[in-house]
Amino acid sequence: MKKLINTPQTVVADALRGMAASHSEISVDAEAGIVTRSGGKVPGKVGIVSGGGSGHEPLHAGFVGRGMLDAAVAGPVFTSPVPDRIGEATAAVDSGAGVLHIVKNYTGDILNFGMAAEDADDDGIKVETVVVDDDVAVARGEGAGRRGTGATLFVEKLAGALAETGAPLAEVAAMARKVNEMSRSFGVALSSCTTPANGAPNFELGDREIEIGVGIHGEPGRRRAELTTAADTVEIMLDAILEDLPEADGAPVLLLVNGLGATPPIELYVVRAEVERILAGRGIRIARSLVGNYVTSLDMAGCTLTLCRADEQMLQLWDAPVDTPSLRWGA
Amino acid sequence: MKKLINTPQTVVADALRGMAASHSEISVDAEAGIVTRSGGKVPGKVGIVSGGGSGHEPLHAGFVGRGMLDAAVAGPVFTSPVPDRIGEATAAVDSGAGVLHIVKNYTGDILNFGMAAEDADDDGIKVETVVVDDDVAVARGEGAGRRGTGATLFVEKLAGALAETGAPLAEVAAMARKVNEMSRSFGVALSSCTTPANGAPNFELGDREIEIGVGIHGEPGRRRAELTTAADTVEIMLDAILEDLPEADGAPVLLLVNGLGATPPIELYVVRAEVERILAGRGIRIARSLVGNYVTSLDMAGCTLTLCRADEQMLQLWDAPVDTPSLRWGA
Repeated sequence: MKKLINTPQTVVADALRGMAASHSEISVDAEAGIVTRSGGKVPGKVGIVSGGGSGHEPLHAGFVGRGMLDAAVAGPVFTSPVPDRIGEATAAVDSGAGVLHIVKNYTGDILNFGMAAEDADDDGIKVETVVVDDDVAVARGEGAGRRGTGATLFVEKLAGALAETGAPLAEVAAMARKVNEMSRSFGVALSSCTTPANGAPNFELGDREIEIGVGIHGEPGRRRAELTTAADTVEIMLDAILEDLPEADGAPVLLLVNGLGATPPIELYVVRAEVERILAGRGIRIARSLVGNYVTSLDMAGCTLTLCRADEQMLQLWDAPVDTPSLRWGA
Repeated sequence: MKKLINTPQTVVADALRGMAASHSEISVDAEAGIVTRSGGKVPGKVGIVSGGGSGHEPLHAGFVGRGMLDAAVAGPVFTSPVPDRIGEATAAVDSGAGVLHIVKNYTGDILNFGMAAEDADDDGIKVETVVVDDDVAVARGEGAGRRGTGATLFVEKLAGALAETGAPLAEVAAMARKVNEMSRSFGVALSSCTTPANGAPNFELGDREIEIGVGIHGEPGRRRAELTTAADTVEIMLDAILEDLPEADGAPVLLLVNGLGATPPIELYVVRAEVERILAGRGIRIARSLVGNYVTSLDMAGCTLTLCRADEQMLQLWDAPVDTPSLRWGA
């Protein structure tokens, strides 16, 4: 294992200390794994909390700030944070308007966020939960259901922007659920990731093999295939996504071309060009897009694509100002 | 070689098409490798042009926009663009106030930008050139001199911000030279990069080996060492930089923690934390910092560190608004 880390035991807290040093707009408790806005809670605003296992940076801590999250809770690598920490973050951001939990669909996260929500309710904090399950590589209803991946960014951005307008909890939660329902993702890997604790790749790929339909926790994909062109790879990914993407009266899409950690910008932009070409050929308009490392899987080479059908309100929420370590734009 | 590309011959144009699709603020001629601001030339403003071989994305095209570059010229992977293309970009951004060429110190770039500047002069366009040579892994005066790496971003940002105020060419060029003089960089690699044309790594590293003092074109470093902690690795890098960094009356520094392409955010933030700790121990204040993939070397794992001593004017120029694909912040 070759990584720029100190020890597997300290990697999460060390990285959080690095984030704290870099970004004065967030306040970081590196040992507890809790990141909040430095300004403290926003009076009258619905609080938005997300979190999960680490190893997906900048998700979630990089999205804490005006227009997006109020708090992020970072567990150990690929392991859900404990309910107490989620509860602390929930209490820290509740200003009386209630709190939305944005939870990726993994068993541990569902369980721990669920317990934290119950405890918060006992303490008089109203919590709504939205579960993100956008990964079409998992069949609907299979096992624990579809995994949450790239759509998490869209849910956090759009629900975050709506909360910033002072919208009530039910409305913010409804938007979060709508964004998830309108989103589909699919990933391919050119290499496995290596967790610091294991020290060896989760799976092995041959020199000319890629893994089709991977998750973001080192799970193997649905099948292996021979390495092919970016054009053919993107076609496989978009076929899987479009088969399942809601039509929504031909609304345009938000697009995320997401690097899994070890794929450089030059390749992500080649992928972006192929997505443009293929979607244009199928009459789908890309209204907004992002290209970069947003929801990583440690040092995995590869990428995920996420499409989200977006109506006019969703586009406006996308365009609303955001000021976080990893997403930043003005009005 | 495992890459998300179509062919080695088309990778640069394909990636530029992806950038064009993603970023409406830039105007891209993918075949010519020329990227300009979509608004066209800015009347009365000094034009700023940079460029060089591709494989370092988002450098340079990702830095075209208000507050930074007026044009970027992308050559083939790791190969300087030809003088004619540089000349086209120079003519495209000259509004009569002259043009600054920001050139990384590599033989091909020096030669080709030099020829383009002469031709521009013949056409009545006044050109000043600043050469960026910040890499302390190369001894001063050795061979072709020090390589240009991460400081290029600082030069482009600060000279870009000054040009935006309407400052004359001589002043913008003087600032660019000052930023370069105040900057020092050093890189380490955990893996080699693989150029699409070669298809095999430029050098091979053992499972526990790292390369100390690498450049951004797959050159081997000054020496090999055994993989160690992030803390020890950062200490080696900062020792090399600080030995050569101007004191500048104890002025604070700008810091760039730059990923070389295949190193994920979690590791870059661990490095950021170690830089904070070590510099604090040596009484050096980090006034501003960036963490991410800004000056990559294709799919190389590793990072570079750049420090730049910054006076009050330089900090103000850093904070000035910038609106480019890869750096974006408001006033």
